[in-house]
Amino acid sequence: MKILVLHGPNLNLFGRRETAIYGLTTFADINRAIEEQARELGVEVEIFQSNHEGALLDKLHERIDDCDGCVINPGALTHYSIALHDCLKAVPFPTVEVHLSNVARREPFRHQSFVSPAAEGTIAGLGWRGYLLALRWLVESRQ
Amino acid sequence: MKILVLHGPNLNLFGRRETAIYGLTTFADINRAIEEQARELGVEVEIFQSNHEGALLDKLHERIDDCDGCVINPGALTHYSIALHDCLKAVPFPTVEVHLSNVARREPFRHQSFVSPAAEGTIAGLGWRGYLLALRWLVESRQ
Amino acid sequence: MKILVLHGPNLNLFGRRETAIYGLTTFADINRAIEEQARELGVEVEIFQSNHEGALLDKLHERIDDCDGCVINPGALTHYSIALHDCLKAVPFPTVEVHLSNVARREPFRHQSFVSPAAEGTIAGLGWRGYLLALRWLVESRQ
Amino acid sequence: MKILVLHGPNLNLFGRRETAIYGLTTFADINRAIEEQARELGVEVEIFQSNHEGALLDKLHERIDDCDGCVINPGALTHYSIALHDCLKAVPFPTVEVHLSNVARREPFRHQSFVSPAAEGTIAGLGWRGYLLALRWLVESRQ
Amino acid sequence: MKILVLHGPNLNLFGRRETAIYGLTTFADINRAIEEQARELGVEVEIFQSNHEGALLDKLHERIDDCDGCVINPGALTHYSIALHDCLKAVPFPTVEVHLSNVARREPFRHQSFVSPAAEGTIAGLGWRGYLLALRWLVESRQ
Amino acid sequence: MKILVLHGPNLNLFGRRETAIYGLTTFADINRAIEEQARELGVEVEIFQSNHEGALLDKLHERIDDCDGCVINPGALTHYSIALHDCLKAVPFPTVEVHLSNVARREPFRHQSFVSPAAEGTIAGLGWRGYLLALRWLVESRQ
Amino acid sequence: MKILVLHGPNLNLFGRRETAIYGLTTFADINRAIEEQARELGVEVEIFQSNHEGALLDKLHERIDDCDGCVINPGALTHYSIALHDCLKAVPFPTVEVHLSNVARREPFRHQSFVSPAAEGTIAGLGWRGYLLALRWLVESRQ
Amino acid sequence: MKILVLHGPNLNLFGRRETAIYGLTTFADINRAIEEQARELGVEVEIFQSNHEGALLDKLHERIDDCDGCVINPGALTHYSIALHDCLKAVPFPTVEVHLSNVARREPFRHQSFVSPAAEGTIAGLGWRGYLLALRWLVESRQ
Amino acid sequence: MKILVLHGPNLNLFGRRETAIYGLTTFADINRAIEEQARELGVEVEIFQSNHEGALLDKLHERIDDCDGCVINPGALTHYSIALHDCLKAVPFPTVEVHLSNVARREPFRHQSFVSPAAEGTIAGLGWRGYLLALRWLVESRQ
Amino acid sequence: MKILVLHGPNLNLFGRRETAIYGLTTFADINRAIEEQARELGVEVEIFQSNHEGALLDKLHERIDDCDGCVINPGALTHYSIALHDCLKAVPFPTVEVHLSNVARREPFRHQSFVSPAAEGTIAGLGWRGYLLALRWLVESRQ
Amino acid sequence: MKILVLHGPNLNLFGRRETAIYGLTTFADINRAIEEQARELGVEVEIFQSNHEGALLDKLHERIDDCDGCVINPGALTHYSIALHDCLKAVPFPTVEVHLSNVARREPFRHQSFVSPAAEGTIAGLGWRGYLLALRWLVESRQ
Amino acid sequence: MKILVLHGPNLNLFGRRETAIYGLTTFADINRAIEEQARELGVEVEIFQSNHEGALLDKLHERIDDCDGCVINPGALTHYSIALHDCLKAVPFPTVEVHLSNVARREPFRHQSFVSPAAEGTIAGLGWRGYLLALRWLVESRQ
Repeated sequence: MKILVLHGPNLNLFGRRETAIYGLTTFADINRAIEEQARELGVEVEIFQSNHEGALLDKLHERIDDCDGCVINPGALTHYSIALHDCLKAVPFPTVEVHLSNVARREPFRHQSFVSPAAEGTIAGLGWRGYLLALRWLVESRQ
Repeated sequence: MKILVLHGPNLNLFGRRETAIYGLTTFADINRAIEEQARELGVEVEIFQSNHEGALLDKLHERIDDCDGCVINPGALTHYSIALHDCLKAVPFPTVEVHLSNVARREPFRHQSFVSPAAEGTIAGLGWRGYLLALRWLVESRQ
Repeated sequence: MKILVLHGPNLNLFGRRETAIYGLTTFADINRAIEEQARELGVEVEIFQSNHEGALLDKLHERIDDCDGCVINPGALTHYSIALHDCLKAVPFPTVEVHLSNVARREPFRHQSFVSPAAEGTIAGLGWRGYLLALRWLVESRQ
Repeated sequence: MKILVLHGPNLNLFGRRETAIYGLTTFADINRAIEEQARELGVEVEIFQSNHEGALLDKLHERIDDCDGCVINPGALTHYSIALHDCLKAVPFPTVEVHLSNVARREPFRHQSFVSPAAEGTIAGLGWRGYLLALRWLVESRQ
Repeated sequence: MKILVLHGPNLNLFGRRETAIYGLTTFADINRAIEEQARELGVEVEIFQSNHEGALLDKLHERIDDCDGCVINPGALTHYSIALHDCLKAVPFPTVEVHLSNVARREPFRHQSFVSPAAEGTIAGLGWRGYLLALRWLVESRQ
Repeated sequence: MKILVLHGPNLNLFGRRETAIYGLTTFADINRAIEEQARELGVEVEIFQSNHEGALLDKLHERIDDCDGCVINPGALTHYSIALHDCLKAVPFPTVEVHLSNVARREPFRHQSFVSPAAEGTIAGLGWRGYLLALRWLVESRQ
Repeated sequence: MKILVLHGPNLNLFGRRETAIYGLTTFADINRAIEEQARELGVEVEIFQSNHEGALLDKLHERIDDCDGCVINPGALTHYSIALHDCLKAVPFPTVEVHLSNVARREPFRHQSFVSPAAEGTIAGLGWRGYLLALRWLVESRQ
Repeated sequence: MKILVLHGPNLNLFGRRETAIYGLTTFADINRAIEEQARELGVEVEIFQSNHEGALLDKLHERIDDCDGCVINPGALTHYSIALHDCLKAVPFPTVEVHLSNVARREPFRHQSFVSPAAEGTIAGLGWRGYLLALRWLVESRQ
Repeated sequence: MKILVLHGPNLNLFGRRETAIYGLTTFADINRAIEEQARELGVEVEIFQSNHEGALLDKLHERIDDCDGCVINPGALTHYSIALHDCLKAVPFPTVEVHLSNVARREPFRHQSFVSPAAEGTIAGLGWRGYLLALRWLVESRQ
Repeated sequence: MKILVLHGPNLNLFGRRETAIYGLTTFADINRAIEEQARELGVEVEIFQSNHEGALLDKLHERIDDCDGCVINPGALTHYSIALHDCLKAVPFPTVEVHLSNVARREPFRHQSFVSPAAEGTIAGLGWRGYLLALRWLVESRQ
Repeated sequence: MKILVLHGPNLNLFGRRETAIYGLTTFADINRAIEEQARELGVEVEIFQSNHEGALLDKLHERIDDCDGCVINPGALTHYSIALHDCLKAVPFPTVEVHLSNVARREPFRHQSFVSPAAEGTIAGLGWRGYLLALRWLVESRQ
Repeated sequence: MKILVLHGPNLNLFGRRETAIYGLTTFADINRAIEEQARELGVEVEIFQSNHEGALLDKLHERIDDCDGCVINPGALTHYSIALHDCLKAVPFPTVEVHLSNVARREPFRHQSFVSPAAEGTIAGLGWRGYLLALRWLVESRQ
């Protein structure tokens, strides 16, 4: 089973300076936790981050016939990328949308998601563990 | 560790007639899966369903000093119960909001949640497994 | 044939003091007229009033397998009870929504109905006779 | 007692081709049922259909002193004819608005009615029987 | 003179743990101050709190012929209970709406009140003293 | 100088029954006053009323090369006839919009006028005298 | 008969530099025309301009018992002065609102008038002659 | 193959005076171009213009069983005729909506079309050639 | 203790003609009651009314270092004076907003208050006694 | 004559799997039809697809002095790319916007187009033939 | 070259008590910095502050023929003074709008500016230095 | 001191053809003026333009630890790039937003800025000189 993990714009900046202090909070740490969880579940993951909407679409197109599920944190694209919405509806594999923070507590313009209606489901506000739960669900719900 | 699992109005009707056929889809089956997961994680759960907003509030008040976390599927109350919002903000333990279906794909009046900003986070659209992921998160994030 | 007649919050106060003077306008009088109409049509009716949204839901759940149609005047719940909406969609029998007054002539917040899209149809502004027409329709449209 | 039954634009197309199969569903059948019900109730009816808003107004003006009640299915004019609204408020006899379908389940632009606040009441979603209930109410409520 | 004091959902949690420290800020303290004020004004009060909208309505119905005025803090129900609106308009005695905090400074969904147009007047943002001013007004304005 | 005076839907019903009593208030009386005013100002008027939007357009098209100004009371069409808007912009002569009542005091749906931006100006709320002022302006402003 | 003519903020700048060229278009010219019209109609006028909302209110208060009608061009205050609205409703004499330009053709924020619902009627888009028509109406409609 | 070409209100005024100068821009010229195109494509066309919404509906009803496609420029009716919407959905043949100008560049009230969702497709802003492209599409897409 | 009592535009007109009849309802009577209440509470009051927003601001600036609390009835300025909002936030003493009538029952444009979020609290709909309760609160809450 | 044909995000996925069955419906087939039509009309076309908004802008900038017209199907960018709007307004050649489907029948967020007001015109809902009609128009309207 | 610097309501309170401590932050300090900058640029400035909208208008009228540019910080009037908007459009010299704080980060009612569309440009969020940049621009852009 | 100057999509097209005539108005000229100003202020600037939202984000990420301030003209991205909003909030240096034109006078969709709340301040409508004032402010406010 192959799973694609996509990170949208600016997510690479996450926890950039506060590393050692706060433990598992840098972007690299999150990715390490994802890879560990994947190993434990016995699945293959490809992790990809881009600040370009188009590059995220290209990656999804490229993997269209070679992927069993996707975990995506679209970052700010969540709120205006209708192209991502269209793409997630066009690919044949299920997607779980993940947000690190509880978007319902943030600015009103973050309350609309164009990704949610195109995804199977959403996990928000549960921090980096949200990615691991999403992976686990993709594996368990396919069994 | 003690966890309260709350089901809001009409959730007891879930999968009422289609039991045997579709496997784990009746309300009783969901509750059995929750109890099993709790046993596996080594935590105590109390499961409570009510069609009365007030009864859900009463239950939360009753357990205010004797609970370590809450998993709630508020059903239709999600969209208008400001009293539930106030209550979840008043209790000292964390709450995870769970929805069986992907509410972003349903009627517009279901796109507003008064529970999300009062909860730690939200899991939506991942079916009955959403409850299990919420339980797991409450346990693991407290370690 | 068994029909459930539900009255929502405050409807029991209807015509409370003006009885003898105006003829058939107290709550008791309306219920007597409904029972008479039921006898004439040869159907059984159960009449139930509650100020508790949850109690109306409980009643519908209790009769879910033992009812052929419902006449409901949801009172103020019309305008905010998404739980009633969900419940009426979940029960297997048809419902007719009745309003004593012409809601289109009242405050703007009464122009939205969460019950209408979940009911078969609506009768509004025709006074207590609206209940009788609703009963008649449930009987005649099933023949 | 004389009753005017008005059908607005396109209603003459109703059930145009599916006649024999579905029984009482063509426009002609509906009118026959209305006439039968009128005979049974001992009242006179005039039935008039037009695709012209102005022609419906002309008919109401013409009958202004010679009519005891009106049943109107304004079709699409429901949602934008303020002229019909004004006319129904100007005539001295009561009107019942009828819709064959449950407009609350249709497109949002059909949720606004300019006719409802000018009518005594509304019957929606109960099919062709809605006309018969409206006739019956006009007769019984005047007794 | 008899006055009904109603507290809506979650108000019983007010100041629950901070008692001794902050002086007159627990729910019990507020009620004691109300009773004292009532004694001083020479009126009888009944104080009632419920998390159930329906129970508040039942209480108002029960006292409909035996009450001279009502002080209500509807809590979260303020913002969505049209049933409370209807009930306050149906009872024959005057009501004063009280809010502990200044709702105009809080979330936008708290800016709409369904209770205000059904009450005589409103006192907001003046803390627990707001209840005492309301009591005083009910007594003085009836003299 | 030739002036066209147009009355929209339902205006013919104005003052229909209260003639003799209230003096100059029936539709016929208004038209007589207009004709008198025209004679006094030394201009020719054609007065035309219709309940049909199309008939009002036809009349304006017919007079397109043979008219020096128009006074129009579009009645309910004011609020939705974009066709009238387009037509008044297409004809080469100036138009004054007249309303008998003060539309700003009526229902919100009467606050939007599609005729105002296509007219030279508007006179509202000044009763039947509004027509006479409009006529006078058309004459005086062309001198 | 005494009539008050009020000009709101900035109206004194009208036609300030283009005088001799365009004839009757400066502010002084408009006032001369108003005075001439008043003489012709046999009424007294007081003309007052201010850039201060408060000064316009003070003037209306001062003349409250000594005025038979008012013509007001509130300028920009039209669109936000609720105080002017309240004042015009409080004074016992009728007011006609005049606008030189056709406000319906201007920016959207000029489409709302707080003065219109407090005035008897409105004349807009008819230039300086609008003031004369307003005067004439005040005189003729009182006869 | 038979095609109905409908022109809505005021379209007959198009290019009324500027004929000879601008070449193919009068209403007659457009119709000539349509007829020529029809001949070239080997199809029959009936061209019909009316200022009456009802007359356009009557024409569509009349041709309901005798037409293979429709090209309609609904003029101002585009923006409010729900009756036209209903009629185009009721007829069995495909319709192409044509607008001479680019409505997206015009007033906001022209941005809503009730005809678009009832038509197969729309051609806007391409001038009189839009009609010819619509004809061509109706013919070619049926082959 | 020194308290500033401010009355906004038009409040001086209150009860202007109906004095003797209705008892304490003229502006002078209200001010007398305020002064009496102040004497009874042992505080000094300065009462100031103006129709000029700027004059109210000037007064607040003037008293900025010499005032312990303010009672303000901003009249119509409530609904649009952002300058008053800014000023009340800038002064160091607490303010109570008072409205004679229940604004929630009046026109929608009166439902927005720019003063409420800048005040400590609000008393509305309790008539002239509202001023007295506000004074009492300022005194008692400072003890 | 040189024409640029631009396809926006995800359009390359069109008809990806259903090729052989439905005939001319893959992305490659559409491009072949465009090239054929170009040959027939005697014009040169460059076809370019990208998932990157910036790449579409770069292409338009690159061809700014070397292009006679553009046909664009902006895909999802239609609904949010103000940059595309600005670019199409900045280039000196005309553009026709094409949509394969009838966007007016799809989700509300697809009803707003930032491209339409910057294009000459729009063709929507006419499938792949829409591209051919757009090409034809660009050629014929320049003759 | 003469420049008018206008400060709207409440700006005189700026930094009122924190003078010596924070350096250049009192109102007097800001004005001194403006005067210094003016000397350095070789221009004359008149600085004027008022809490009265009308007084700001009067000042602009008074200087209409004797001013080469204006710098205005309209304070709260920014958001509702349509009279200021009209006045700035009527005067012949250019205006730069200045705000000390970043209004885009403040309450939503501060996001609308009636001054911006009437000014040449806007400088916001750059503190007291914004006035100096505005002066510099007025001088340099006229050279 | 190092300053990053960013130009968003299409800004490279600015003044592309009108060079010699209008003096300093091409994109190259603006950049030359910025570099000259930087030299005069003794700071280093890097100027970067891109049509790709992602490329602007990449540049900001790259300079995150090596930059003391940013001047950005986000072009069309201003109005929809929530990703730019997030990025500007994530970088540790201050940003000044610059717009060449007065956006408040342009289309409504340009009135919303996602960049303003993430920037220190905004300068709009002051042409190319706005960049120079922004540079100056970044330098002077840091001293």
